[in-house]
Amino acid sequence: MVELGLILAISVLGLAFAGYLITWVMARDTGTPAMREVSDAIKAGAEAFLRRQNKTIAIMAAGLACLIFIVYGFVRQHEAFDPTETSLELAFWTTLSFVLGAICSVAAGYVGMWVSIRTNVRAAAGARTSLNEALQIALRGGAVSGLFVVAMSLLGVAGLFGIIYATKGGFSGSVAAAAQIAPKIPLMIAGYGFGASFVALFAQVGGGIYTKAADVGADLVGKVEAGIPEDDPRNPAVIADLVGDNVGDCAGRGADLFESTAAENIGAMIIAATLYQSNAGKLGTNVLGIMLFPLVARAFGIVASIFGVMFVKTDGKEDPMHALNRGFYVTAVLAAAGFCGASIWLLGDYWLNFFLCGLLGIVTSLLFVFITQYYTEYRFKPVQDIAQASIAGPATNIIQGIAVGLECVWMPCLVISGAILGSYKLGDSSGLTHAGLFGTAVATMGMLGTAGYILAMDTFGPITDNAGGIVEMSIGHDQPEVREKTDKLDSVGNTTKALTKGYAVGSAALAAFLLFSAYIDEINHYTEGRHSMTAVNLNKPAVFVGALLGAMLVFWFSALCIKAVGRSAQKVIEEVRRQFKSLPRENGIIVFPAGYKPDYGTCVDIVTKDALRQMVAPGLLAVGMPIGVGLLLRALKTPDDPLLAAEGVAALLMVGTIAGILMALFLNNAGGAWDNAKKYIETGAHGGKYLTAPDGTKTKNPVHGAAVVGDTVGDPFKDTAGPSLHVLIKMLSTITLVLAPLFL
Amino acid sequence: MVELGLILAISVLGLAFAGYLITWVMARDTGTPAMREVSDAIKAGAEAFLRRQNKTIAIMAAGLACLIFIVYGFVRQHEAFDPTETSLELAFWTTLSFVLGAICSVAAGYVGMWVSIRTNVRAAAGARTSLNEALQIALRGGAVSGLFVVAMSLLGVAGLFGIIYATKGGFSGSVAAAAQIAPKIPLMIAGYGFGASFVALFAQVGGGIYTKAADVGADLVGKVEAGIPEDDPRNPAVIADLVGDNVGDCAGRGADLFESTAAENIGAMIIAATLYQSNAGKLGTNVLGIMLFPLVARAFGIVASIFGVMFVKTDGKEDPMHALNRGFYVTAVLAAAGFCGASIWLLGDYWLNFFLCGLLGIVTSLLFVFITQYYTEYRFKPVQDIAQASIAGPATNIIQGIAVGLECVWMPCLVISGAILGSYKLGDSSGLTHAGLFGTAVATMGMLGTAGYILAMDTFGPITDNAGGIVEMSIGHDQPEVREKTDKLDSVGNTTKALTKGYAVGSAALAAFLLFSAYIDEINHYTEGRHSMTAVNLNKPAVFVGALLGAMLVFWFSALCIKAVGRSAQKVIEEVRRQFKSLPRENGIIVFPAGYKPDYGTCVDIVTKDALRQMVAPGLLAVGMPIGVGLLLRALKTPDDPLLAAEGVAALLMVGTIAGILMALFLNNAGGAWDNAKKYIETGAHGGKYLTAPDGTKTKNPVHGAAVVGDTVGDPFKDTAGPSLHVLIKMLSTITLVLAPLFL
Repeated sequence: MVELGLILAISVLGLAFAGYLITWVMARDTGTPAMREVSDAIKAGAEAFLRRQNKTIAIMAAGLACLIFIVYGFVRQHEAFDPTETSLELAFWTTLSFVLGAICSVAAGYVGMWVSIRTNVRAAAGARTSLNEALQIALRGGAVSGLFVVAMSLLGVAGLFGIIYATKGGFSGSVAAAAQIAPKIPLMIAGYGFGASFVALFAQVGGGIYTKAADVGADLVGKVEAGIPEDDPRNPAVIADLVGDNVGDCAGRGADLFESTAAENIGAMIIAATLYQSNAGKLGTNVLGIMLFPLVARAFGIVASIFGVMFVKTDGKEDPMHALNRGFYVTAVLAAAGFCGASIWLLGDYWLNFFLCGLLGIVTSLLFVFITQYYTEYRFKPVQDIAQASIAGPATNIIQGIAVGLECVWMPCLVISGAILGSYKLGDSSGLTHAGLFGTAVATMGMLGTAGYILAMDTFGPITDNAGGIVEMSIGHDQPEVREKTDKLDSVGNTTKALTKGYAVGSAALAAFLLFSAYIDEINHYTEGRHSMTAVNLNKPAVFVGALLGAMLVFWFSALCIKAVGRSAQKVIEEVRRQFKSLPRENGIIVFPAGYKPDYGTCVDIVTKDALRQMVAPGLLAVGMPIGVGLLLRALKTPDDPLLAAEGVAALLMVGTIAGILMALFLNNAGGAWDNAKKYIETGAHGGKYLTAPDGTKTKNPVHGAAVVGDTVGDPFKDTAGPSLHVLIKMLSTITLVLAPLFL
Repeated sequence: MVELGLILAISVLGLAFAGYLITWVMARDTGTPAMREVSDAIKAGAEAFLRRQNKTIAIMAAGLACLIFIVYGFVRQHEAFDPTETSLELAFWTTLSFVLGAICSVAAGYVGMWVSIRTNVRAAAGARTSLNEALQIALRGGAVSGLFVVAMSLLGVAGLFGIIYATKGGFSGSVAAAAQIAPKIPLMIAGYGFGASFVALFAQVGGGIYTKAADVGADLVGKVEAGIPEDDPRNPAVIADLVGDNVGDCAGRGADLFESTAAENIGAMIIAATLYQSNAGKLGTNVLGIMLFPLVARAFGIVASIFGVMFVKTDGKEDPMHALNRGFYVTAVLAAAGFCGASIWLLGDYWLNFFLCGLLGIVTSLLFVFITQYYTEYRFKPVQDIAQASIAGPATNIIQGIAVGLECVWMPCLVISGAILGSYKLGDSSGLTHAGLFGTAVATMGMLGTAGYILAMDTFGPITDNAGGIVEMSIGHDQPEVREKTDKLDSVGNTTKALTKGYAVGSAALAAFLLFSAYIDEINHYTEGRHSMTAVNLNKPAVFVGALLGAMLVFWFSALCIKAVGRSAQKVIEEVRRQFKSLPRENGIIVFPAGYKPDYGTCVDIVTKDALRQMVAPGLLAVGMPIGVGLLLRALKTPDDPLLAAEGVAALLMVGTIAGILMALFLNNAGGAWDNAKKYIETGAHGGKYLTAPDGTKTKNPVHGAAVVGDTVGDPFKDTAGPSLHVLIKMLSTITLVLAPLFL
């Protein structure tokens, strides 16, 4: 009971601190009227999109909620081993938690975006004072989103748990009663994770399509055809592009990490319950202490992240990335200390092994960050090779980039393999029965301990990107030294965004194993005493087919995401060309009239509508496929093999996850590497952006042109399909958790 | 015994007929001296490469053979359940079959190439007479390769089986003795499949790198920079490009399909043995009849292919593809009839279900051909969408092409799922025990029934490609009507090559399940009476790690193949540029002196050396990874779970296969679609190859330029990495079959 109180208290503290950061950020200067004008346009576009997107998602979620209620309450027969007394009660809790998860996920995304579209102009204004001022504003604005997400997800899971535990009389009952009640609760609140991931899926897919359709459209006509720089106010798609950074990177990623932490917490609780039950007596009488251990460890992580964020400052001379890295190390060390404390407190004699598991998780997160840097930063060979290949043209640039993307999976896979085997072994050798799996769950919690800080760094990306755009579109011409500062932060922001993706894939991979096991534990709970699922046996045709279709889902889903960007970008290109058509030209080059101001609204409108329409197909595919395969295989089950469908769905989940992790690594890192290969050339490598002839005339460098092709191809890879795959992986876990009874 | 005789007789008949076709082709006219000169240059280059490649492969294979002998003979302990009396005997048979498989695979590749580099000039000469003459010469030349491959693989497997059966006294012994001896033999000859796939892997990887490095290099400087047409004699890399078609497409693919048929035959025999043993009495006393049924069915397929090839003729007016399709239908119908006969003869009362399985396999092969056509021919939407996307530039062309490639996996996956579940169900409902798996094995044999004809169509591709090149480089200028005919055949050849790849992936996918099961049957045979592997349980950490690493292998391997092409192409580009540097220029455009003849030899030499060097890394990765993972997991096994390593390797094999199938489909079809999108634009779509200004001046159409980028990117996809993945998948199956005892 103390544990629950502590978790709730720290969650509330996290939210309160986020509130404090909001007032701190909002009290900063908002700059000149010109800056505010740009910021207002971004704000209006972003809020309009999110409103419409949330409406679309709300309708679909409401439909799904009704369906869940009907299926659980009326279609499915009540079974003796259900965690509730009646079908209706199970339907009630599952639907309620689904709805709550969906609402909280929407709220997390919305708050993140609300703050970031207000922080961007303040960071831009702060850059007029000092780099430190801008850095702190951007990071603290990002931290609001980060803290809100992790605190809300913890509060939601712990709160729902507490409510059900209280209504069932857990607090007033005996120790034996508590041990009866508590393990059933995670099964009743699995819907929370599913609600969160359902929203996250559409938010990330829709936002991802929006951001890259606008970006590709703006770049291809603006930069390539008209030859105007990035974020130039004369580009009709520039506001849509800046809006996209917010809706894709803030809102989407916020919802993504919200659901990650929620889903993994619930999964860890299911595993902890099994651990407690398999070790009668050994773990004391406090079932809550074991089941809530993962949540306590995560709560300490929130405190660590707060310290980490407040620790960051720079003197304006060093690379701001170093300042952010210092903050990360502080967070990691404090999170490790918190983990140690939580282990000693709640796990008693067995604390050391599990503390080491948590430490392994923290180390894994560091390794993922390093590997991502190696493959996507231009200090290292992979990106330099891509730049080198650009000399022979766009085709060799693409070939090399794809090769780098495909190659980069090997190190992360080895790290994950090591982390899974290592934490399992550590758990297993703790002396407890069935503790290996709990070890991997604890490692996942360790990895997620720094999530608050990582997410703050992530949201820092779009904020500084926007700040740079605002400066460029307002005072950039007159005060190049301000633009220089925001450029520095923007480039750091690009790195932090890439790192977060590496972290997100890594945590998805580590969590995968825990979530599979939660699903299997759940199946066995439902079928207790009749059958038991001991294996996910790939050597049965139906199970193999489930696995094949899981991997196929990943390819098809990625295709739909990438295609949607191509299609929407096409429309933006047409609109920008339409607006440019009437402008005067000299030698085919547009001569912009002084004070030319394009119509930004049409592009914003086009992308908004198109992104919302195109997010539906991949979303429905992702939700429909596991259900469809489950129901199909259910039709094939025989009395000899009553769990065939559940097993086939497990294979779909597992192999889909493996394929998803690899595909996401490929897409994210290829995209990041292409992006930075272009930036590397812009620093002057291979001739730089322009070539100067002996007579002084400047011409475009074709090597840079080839690198721009790669950069454009990488856009939908790294910002639409890749991040959407993270969500897909977790959504598969939660949908199978919630719908497991349907496949029996 | 009759069965064995029949198989051997038909194999020899197939070889004899191939011999007849060789004399038929060699008796054709070899054209003008100019044509012979080009052909001789190709011949010299191809033979030099193959000689050096075979030397490299021979050294590695010899090393591996010694290793296998030592490990089996001296390191590994003899077990009571080994199929032989002593360790040394098992070592002897395994090593012998490995060596034989390697030699036969080399021979199959060599003969295919030997004939095709002699058929090309004769097909070119034949095109001066009529389209039909050229078509028949090219197809019959291709059929030599096709028949040789299928007949040799059958002869090898059946011959080895017969020899061991005879030495063990199977022919003279009682029925009971035969039932004891026969099932053990496939375990002793599994090395044959491994030897074949070891050679095939290096042949396909090396040949694939050669062909595309030369092609990309020739195109990027020749077509794009110098503006000279395809196969122009002024291009220094043109001979290397034509050589590449032979070593990559003939020799590589020949070795590939040789090992497919060999591996799948052995796998099917293992499954058949298990079926016979599980149905004591029901299947009569003739164990050979059941075990050799798959081989008999395949033997009839050889006869069907001979008829199909001889049936093809054209009147010169219709699309030659129709003529080839007619031949394919004839083959399919005859193969089905042969299947029916074999089923009735050998399976008695149970014939109908298994005949239907075979039919399902044949239908699957047809469906794969249709799906491949849909995704890669410009009559259909996917390719047209790519052409459309080229309007906005190379970046959107690439984005769309990748989306098409990722999307195209869904239909093949559904077809394969249907085929696996359907044939399993059909087998299962035959009334025999454990017959489901035999059903899928029989479906695979059905699919492979038409392999001879398909391979003839495939080798038809490089022959007509070469014929076109020879005409272009000799008489093309003076006799455009001949070039027109060879162009027609070349375009058909492109289609047939794409179809074969679809067929090869499809058969690999269908065979996968059979080969997994053979592996598990083998493990259980070795551990009989002590442990038994009942499942490949993804829900164990070590097994999950095996699965993750299997999928990772596919990505990494693809990366190495693609990267190698990029790197070698770079060297060709430099060499071509070096040769062009000294030529006079006007406005930057090269003005070739009359009678200019470049130095072809340097390019041939560069690609030869580079391809041989670069094939080593992906090859060793593919061979080393399953062994490494197996030995690593063996170190983790516990007394509770003695089969842990074997199970982890099974997961590596299965999930590696799933990832490999999807990746190969992606790479092959994206590459094919890009190729044809470019060809579609060349037919005049979106402005065609050149734009004509109002004043009559011709300029390059940038839409075509964008499509050329896609085509170039697709080259290493569809001709290096994709086909190499087919071989990788099968090699994983055979290496695990052979080395299974090591993981116990």
